[in-house]
Amino acid sequence: MINEFYKEMTGKGSVIREFFTYATKKAAEIGAENIFNYSIGNPSVPVPQAFTDYMMELLQKEDPVKLHGYSPSLGLDSTRCAVAESLNRRFGMNYTKDEIFMTSAAAGAIAHALRCVTKEGDEVITFAPYFPEYVPYVTGCGAKLTVIPADTDTFQINFEEFEKALNPNVSAVLINTPNNPSGIVYSTETVKKLAAMLEEKQKAFGHDIYLITDEPYREIVFSGTDAPFVSKFYANSLCCYSFSKSLSLPGERIGYLAVNPACKDAKTIVLMSGQISRFTGHNCPPSIIQLAVEKVLDMTSDISVYEKNKEILYKALTDMGFSIVKPGGTFYMFPKSPIPDANEFCWTAAKELNLILVPGDSFLCPGHFRISYCVTTDMVERSLPAFEKLYKMYK
Amino acid sequence: MINEFYKEMTGKGSVIREFFTYATKKAAEIGAENIFNYSIGNPSVPVPQAFTDYMMELLQKEDPVKLHGYSPSLGLDSTRCAVAESLNRRFGMNYTKDEIFMTSAAAGAIAHALRCVTKEGDEVITFAPYFPEYVPYVTGCGAKLTVIPADTDTFQINFEEFEKALNPNVSAVLINTPNNPSGIVYSTETVKKLAAMLEEKQKAFGHDIYLITDEPYREIVFSGTDAPFVSKFYANSLCCYSFSKSLSLPGERIGYLAVNPACKDAKTIVLMSGQISRFTGHNCPPSIIQLAVEKVLDMTSDISVYEKNKEILYKALTDMGFSIVKPGGTFYMFPKSPIPDANEFCWTAAKELNLILVPGDSFLCPGHFRISYCVTTDMVERSLPAFEKLYKMYK
Repeated sequence: MINEFYKEMTGKGSVIREFFTYATKKAAEIGAENIFNYSIGNPSVPVPQAFTDYMMELLQKEDPVKLHGYSPSLGLDSTRCAVAESLNRRFGMNYTKDEIFMTSAAAGAIAHALRCVTKEGDEVITFAPYFPEYVPYVTGCGAKLTVIPADTDTFQINFEEFEKALNPNVSAVLINTPNNPSGIVYSTETVKKLAAMLEEKQKAFGHDIYLITDEPYREIVFSGTDAPFVSKFYANSLCCYSFSKSLSLPGERIGYLAVNPACKDAKTIVLMSGQISRFTGHNCPPSIIQLAVEKVLDMTSDISVYEKNKEILYKALTDMGFSIVKPGGTFYMFPKSPIPDANEFCWTAAKELNLILVPGDSFLCPGHFRISYCVTTDMVERSLPAFEKLYKMYK
Repeated sequence: MINEFYKEMTGKGSVIREFFTYATKKAAEIGAENIFNYSIGNPSVPVPQAFTDYMMELLQKEDPVKLHGYSPSLGLDSTRCAVAESLNRRFGMNYTKDEIFMTSAAAGAIAHALRCVTKEGDEVITFAPYFPEYVPYVTGCGAKLTVIPADTDTFQINFEEFEKALNPNVSAVLINTPNNPSGIVYSTETVKKLAAMLEEKQKAFGHDIYLITDEPYREIVFSGTDAPFVSKFYANSLCCYSFSKSLSLPGERIGYLAVNPACKDAKTIVLMSGQISRFTGHNCPPSIIQLAVEKVLDMTSDISVYEKNKEILYKALTDMGFSIVKPGGTFYMFPKSPIPDANEFCWTAAKELNLILVPGDSFLCPGHFRISYCVTTDMVERSLPAFEKLYKMYK
């Protein structure tokens, strides 16, 4: 009598986790310094000191009954206001707190956004390569996920395929820029073209199509990259954010949903999110974490190490002969596998060279592999001979 | 194209919130000291100092990258172990970490427990008076909630009505003891009878019936009360806990689901919970909060004030003539309204006497009202003349 649907899922492990588990075991055997673990997206630089200082101040000075007391289900008013103001200041928007809903990181934001703008039987479109958790987020709403194949030359949007896929059943489009796993940032040209196509289809189909933007890497953008704030270009946009990456707080599980004030239902969508939480058992993030994040909204961790690692890896790997679309942000790159079977390639790298990579199949983009370089620059440098050997094995 | 189901819900305010909002407005007009606000369940005593001290220690001494890094989706291993050990030590159980799932407070625990053991079309039984959020938790799984009317003489279980309601479609029974709003604790006799009836029906129907126990008030039990640990008495039991009340941490949103090791699917249910989170966007509680709670698992806030308030209120109100089943725990009591319409009664109390009570209709138990006495003893004492006047108005 336990639920068979969820029971069946417990058997299926994720490939990323398989590689991560292999790396952990191997590290125990031969020492972590002998493993080049590029498998996970856990930030490697500390949260800004101001966050820690303010946490301590709250703990020392605030009345604990007030500090740890119930917060409203949409989040603390002061935090929602501060998030709105930070977005307005940095991106020239005009959010108010009524368009902000504090969530349990990006997962909470996306799950709520999807439930707000889809119903049973709807279709949601996303673009490969994409974060595999989009599947349960979308199917959990009773909607169906359609994946547009990647434009592997640029990892911008494959508009030809996208236009073919758009149909009256589509209620939302879900994008991730800067992108995990490609590291590519959608250009202003891409975003404008996307917005224009959605506007046109809204008219043609006679209903709204919502653009859900998953953007936890928004602040991790490398110099010279054109990185527009997507919601500026499309009224019906729902921005899903997490502080996991920019503030190095993945374990503290805090993010938000910001609905574009230009969307006519923006305030309603935020109120609906509060209702949705009642069905799924979601709670807004802990009060103390909301308050502390509120103080560092315009800051990031020292993310310069990611750009440095990208520079080293991109130059060395392309010199070796790897084919890579140059990342514009995040801490990922997504080279082409020298053999079609990226899974085989990654297992060889792991077993022969202790180089832990993740096959692109997990992101619905076979023939590629992901390098997650939120690691020390020292590890990057020490790993280069292994990449060289790996490439030569397949040349 | 926004989801009509959730949209419609945004219009409907909760009655408790209406009273709370009225109290807040009135307090701004005439001063908080002139309002006797018994409307909400926000603990009034601070978290143990050991929690705060350990939070400070973590912030000062731990590597922030490690401290705030990703935790496994089921919760930190160390926290899950510590929760299991604390339950074993205090209640003579034999949990391991594999039967513990860390959740976003009781809401997260109950929502996951229900999804684990029900499927579309199943029936879940609960007992009035009950927490109104049970409705969305249950209907969110596609199941139907059946409510057994209260035994208003004792607020123990109305077994006659319960037995009539049990049918092969029932997959779970959801109880809340110590109870919000009645303050009553199910006795060993009640729990044994409940377990025996469920065992019998499992055999008769040829399938499991799960007992989901919502017990955030488990540690708030008054002297002389028989307060059994429910899971000891029934194998297929899922204990849903929150640290909101016992540790005065409601805003920090931390709790757990503990599945009885005697349940043959216990470990599977915990793994399923991890899968369910992927669909709803649930995340386990923040790492730092898990670690700090881990240190104070066997402690509570100084909850003696609740018992003191209970003593004063119970004696004074019964002396005045109110009919009350004596609470065994929590910080609630649930007197009979002197008139059948408790809603009218509570609005009169609010408007004429600045006495903020909550009608039992919200808990599917009309004709009663809830007093939430997690307040200062001073306020309790100052409020007694208002109760006296109120009673006389209806005598």
